Amino acid sequence: MIKVGILGATGYVGIELVRILSQHPQVKIVSVVSQSFVGQNISDIYPNLRGIVDQKCEELDVEKIANRCDVVFTALPHGASKTVIPQFVQHGVKVIDLSGDFRYNDVSIYEKWYGTKHDNPELLDISVYGLPELHRDEIAKAHLIGNPGCYTTCSILALVPLIANKLIDTRHIIIDAKSGVSGAGRGLSLDTHFCECTENIKAYKVATHRHTSEIEQELSLVAGEEIILSFTPHLIPMKRGILSTAYADLKQKYTAGELLKIYEEYYKGEFFIRIYDEGKLPETNHVSGSNFVDIGLVVDERLNRVVVVSALDNLIKGAAGQAVQNMNIMFELDEKTGLVASGLYL
Amino acid sequence: MIKVGILGATGYVGIELVRILSQHPQVKIVSVVSQSFVGQNISDIYPNLRGIVDQKCEELDVEKIANRCDVVFTALPHGASKTVIPQFVQHGVKVIDLSGDFRYNDVSIYEKWYGTKHDNPELLDISVYGLPELHRDEIAKAHLIGNPGCYTTCSILALVPLIANKLIDTRHIIIDAKSGVSGAGRGLSLDTHFCECTENIKAYKVATHRHTSEIEQELSLVAGEEIILSFTPHLIPMKRGILSTAYADLKQKYTAGELLKIYEEYYKGEFFIRIYDEGKLPETNHVSGSNFVDIGLVVDERLNRVVVVSALDNLIKGAAGQAVQNMNIMFELDEKTGLVASGLYL
Amino acid sequence: MIKVGILGATGYVGIELVRILSQHPQVKIVSVVSQSFVGQNISDIYPNLRGIVDQKCEELDVEKIANRCDVVFTALPHGASKTVIPQFVQHGVKVIDLSGDFRYNDVSIYEKWYGTKHDNPELLDISVYGLPELHRDEIAKAHLIGNPGCYTTCSILALVPLIANKLIDTRHIIIDAKSGVSGAGRGLSLDTHFCECTENIKAYKVATHRHTSEIEQELSLVAGEEIILSFTPHLIPMKRGILSTAYADLKQKYTAGELLKIYEEYYKGEFFIRIYDEGKLPETNHVSGSNFVDIGLVVDERLNRVVVVSALDNLIKGAAGQAVQNMNIMFELDEKTGLVASGLYL
Amino acid sequence: MIKVGILGATGYVGIELVRILSQHPQVKIVSVVSQSFVGQNISDIYPNLRGIVDQKCEELDVEKIANRCDVVFTALPHGASKTVIPQFVQHGVKVIDLSGDFRYNDVSIYEKWYGTKHDNPELLDISVYGLPELHRDEIAKAHLIGNPGCYTTCSILALVPLIANKLIDTRHIIIDAKSGVSGAGRGLSLDTHFCECTENIKAYKVATHRHTSEIEQELSLVAGEEIILSFTPHLIPMKRGILSTAYADLKQKYTAGELLKIYEEYYKGEFFIRIYDEGKLPETNHVSGSNFVDIGLVVDERLNRVVVVSALDNLIKGAAGQAVQNMNIMFELDEKTGLVASGLYL
Repeated sequence: MIKVGILGATGYVGIELVRILSQHPQVKIVSVVSQSFVGQNISDIYPNLRGIVDQKCEELDVEKIANRCDVVFTALPHGASKTVIPQFVQHGVKVIDLSGDFRYNDVSIYEKWYGTKHDNPELLDISVYGLPELHRDEIAKAHLIGNPGCYTTCSILALVPLIANKLIDTRHIIIDAKSGVSGAGRGLSLDTHFCECTENIKAYKVATHRHTSEIEQELSLVAGEEIILSFTPHLIPMKRGILSTAYADLKQKYTAGELLKIYEEYYKGEFFIRIYDEGKLPETNHVSGSNFVDIGLVVDERLNRVVVVSALDNLIKGAAGQAVQNMNIMFELDEKTGLVASGLYL
Repeated sequence: MIKVGILGATGYVGIELVRILSQHPQVKIVSVVSQSFVGQNISDIYPNLRGIVDQKCEELDVEKIANRCDVVFTALPHGASKTVIPQFVQHGVKVIDLSGDFRYNDVSIYEKWYGTKHDNPELLDISVYGLPELHRDEIAKAHLIGNPGCYTTCSILALVPLIANKLIDTRHIIIDAKSGVSGAGRGLSLDTHFCECTENIKAYKVATHRHTSEIEQELSLVAGEEIILSFTPHLIPMKRGILSTAYADLKQKYTAGELLKIYEEYYKGEFFIRIYDEGKLPETNHVSGSNFVDIGLVVDERLNRVVVVSALDNLIKGAAGQAVQNMNIMFELDEKTGLVASGLYL
Repeated sequence: MIKVGILGATGYVGIELVRILSQHPQVKIVSVVSQSFVGQNISDIYPNLRGIVDQKCEELDVEKIANRCDVVFTALPHGASKTVIPQFVQHGVKVIDLSGDFRYNDVSIYEKWYGTKHDNPELLDISVYGLPELHRDEIAKAHLIGNPGCYTTCSILALVPLIANKLIDTRHIIIDAKSGVSGAGRGLSLDTHFCECTENIKAYKVATHRHTSEIEQELSLVAGEEIILSFTPHLIPMKRGILSTAYADLKQKYTAGELLKIYEEYYKGEFFIRIYDEGKLPETNHVSGSNFVDIGLVVDERLNRVVVVSALDNLIKGAAGQAVQNMNIMFELDEKTGLVASGLYL
Repeated sequence: MIKVGILGATGYVGIELVRILSQHPQVKIVSVVSQSFVGQNISDIYPNLRGIVDQKCEELDVEKIANRCDVVFTALPHGASKTVIPQFVQHGVKVIDLSGDFRYNDVSIYEKWYGTKHDNPELLDISVYGLPELHRDEIAKAHLIGNPGCYTTCSILALVPLIANKLIDTRHIIIDAKSGVSGAGRGLSLDTHFCECTENIKAYKVATHRHTSEIEQELSLVAGEEIILSFTPHLIPMKRGILSTAYADLKQKYTAGELLKIYEEYYKGEFFIRIYDEGKLPETNHVSGSNFVDIGLVVDERLNRVVVVSALDNLIKGAAGQAVQNMNIMFELDEKTGLVASGLYL
């Protein structure tokens, strides 16, 4: 059994980790850490877990956790784990960090988009970007994972086959993404107050959302040239799910069928990526509750432009599920272990 | 492995059976039957299942199914399985029926509340009401289960400890229940048209809802006397979940703590029933996605009246999950097999 | 033109007052007060008002406001206007208070249910309970109105004809009410965080909600004897609207048709009360956006019990609309002025 | 008083016409026509209207209606009014048609995108595209209006100032639009079944939605050259509102402030268009319930690309409200008459 600790266990990503890991046949949750709820039973905070995970929330005591855990998931805001993660790494505990801190190859990109100094730039050399479909081999050997953002995973996977095969003009990529509200976490704000977001849509952080830089980093890597692009997130009145609609001009004529074949080929063997048949497109309720990314596309022949639609559950493939997928790879388990639940649809 | 067939697999209860059974370690789904989608892959109808259940929908051929299945779940409207169920029973195939047809001991009650002749009254002698917490032993030996209604399960379990212990005046029981829209199924109607039910609440079938008669049957059985009561269902703008608020006058003074102890005692060992501590009450997001029924209560000392609040997921403990729980009992498996997923909360 | 001031203008009830009064042909809004947004344009806080009400939020300066206003609406939490309201009253400015402070005849009831000393008990002698359908004549002459609560208005009007006509056993009245989230206001809390309340229902403050005491006060007054009853509020995932389901045992046999005739008679000439024909029941989307209260009922003949269903918009007839209705009466305008917009349905 | 008739009065656009016109001080609704509900009171179909509009639905009798009405609104599916509209025109009754039939200058565009022969191509010569902000003078003189589509109004108004001033590269315009469900009307379909669209987002009719051709027609007219563009509609789990996010490459460097000044200038005097200050963007709850179109923008300096965000209420400025605005112009009333209600925000 893999012994795991979860830091930030009572946030929305943290509790999703607890929920998923509680069903994982090879995992024992030995420590749930929540500074705000120390001493309280986690199932009193999230009563859905009663009878399933009835553990007390602990204070953050790195030494103690390091002695009991093989791997630690840190689900805290960026910057919050700065002193903690190096200590775990030193203790030889594997770390899967769900903040933005260890997702970058180039510290200056991080510092520009996050508007802050990086606390542990030296760790960027050893950290691996935890997107298994692109970096599986490195993940397998990694000690520190920067687990990708939710919008990021959905956007990158939608575009990689086009870019890797040099099919599109990379100067006109536009990603218009729509997310449920859980992506904003459990912290209170007017933006996530029920009456302010039900029956409402809005765009936010247009041209400035941090995930833009992550998407650009990974797509540039695949392209072998610098890509910059438009990324616009929107807030949608629902709990879970991201739908991304990406636009790119094709360099030559392709039919949707031809492109879909290229996608199928590119993602062959990837259990968690599902390519849709021509004429069908993903919707968020196809993936909510699961670790799948669903991808479909349309070619607008009038414009020779491809529109790629992708969907995932922001809390699962966009966060906690992907983190568990990474853990499975790091511990040489079947990558799917504990992650085969289908979405709920309803 | 238990070989199962599912009739009416593309309705909301049917597909929930498929989803739950696809994760059940001792089950093989050998046949999914849907008259409306014969020949189509079930994962084309419900794309959440792609990669998990990719089976073709079959026509209803009793002979063929009977030869391949140990148990059949019939998730069809009442009356629809009239010729089918007797045939399965004759073939020695166990049947778990999710309609109202086999929930009654007294055919006249059924005929009164359903406003129709019963097609197979003789089978009522062998059918068992599939509420494990009340009828576990009979279920274990049964060949035909009448799986309880969603409102029914939520209401009965909330009141049984009070009635079994003769604590309340049974002449003034009022059950005010609120349900998500999935209880109305996948059939189109103006009532379930998005714009007609979002941002809206309504009461419906006041004093005439069929589940009233089921609740009365079971509570009368426990009481040893005839109970009639008020039951009012309401439609709530959400997908899953039922919350039931039940009111009853206490015969003597009891504190909430005393009553909760009686509930704890009554349901000792029942994994799927969770009794809340004093001062806490269930909410539907504590149970959605799980097979739990959560129960809490308040005593209004001014009136010496108890208010019992109970919650379940109408598609799981209120339908498909309870059906699988019954199957587990009938096949001598651990009752929890395939049903231990916690609710999603989010 | 009536010159009005609105205190607490940027809360949900306050802004609803601004919105309604901005359409009122006989009103000039001379002052909008919001301590949190002093100096900011109210249409920057609520951009729906741009081009319609572009006024700066002011600080609370009683002297200044009193000199400019004929009437002041105070939409602040209970206790918050304690020093302010007496000053306005002294200045001869009429006050319509939307908190609980001036709704009670008996200060001890207030102090018991609100758990606090009343700051201005002497004003209870002159304040009038602002439910026009019950107290129109007193309202016309009043200088200080205690505007009723949202649940209260919906519950009282549903039951008054039964009680006034002595048709029910007053010992077993149960009111099970369901409210949209806007009733909780704009203040942030986990209870009103989008992901915590969408796809969720819960009961809250069971047997302890303050509106219980208001309902009891008014029904007791009508009955000529003390009535105590069960009142249970529930939170529903929608913005606006309250549906109340009330249960009472009939003293003699009545059909629904007979009772509805009694209701029609009782509320004859009341524009804002709509009685439904037999077989029909109110839903919240029939009233949302309007000042109507809709009432329908069913008689459960098996139990000789009546179930009364009533609906209103908690922000309008349950708060701001009723306040404007009171203002119209106090200033001898047609009671409907500025309030005849129909609900939106969609 | 203008005497109006409404055909298709019980659809979602029809009933919105009834609701708005019932508050219009210069209008008398003399005829509401609904083939499905002939003889029933419209307030029995839409109980929000009880006490406000209690008229019987009539059969479609052109002669009778023509004799009583000055103007007729036809809110029927495209093609449905083919024999009716010419008759009204011949009778000298003004017609405002809310289908797609009379929105086109070039019949071949209509026939291509609608996949059907046009029934009355000769009327296209006299019909006027009813977008007042672009065609006010022609509307004033028109006898037949083709009232614009909902997506169309939102998209065109967002881009016109950029195109009229030749600021953008017209080969790379992308419009990503998100709509509430009421746009799909009251007809039943699985797509608008509550459980299929709540907690879900999807793109639909990608590259093939009919409104594309309307947007292209109007923008081309403004540009003086043919514009073809990407338009992608999405379905969002809410009732009302459209948010459109449009992307275009700037030909030269402009700041957001400079562009906003150009917008302010372009739309000077347009009451129903509200331009947002830099740093602010529209949301659908700013406009829901009103006839406003709100527009804001961001310049992505890295890409020299402008992102224009616009919002309107699809049933009002996107349909019924705009139709009434057109009527006001045609009858020489103040264009705002009956349309000054602010949005509800909540």
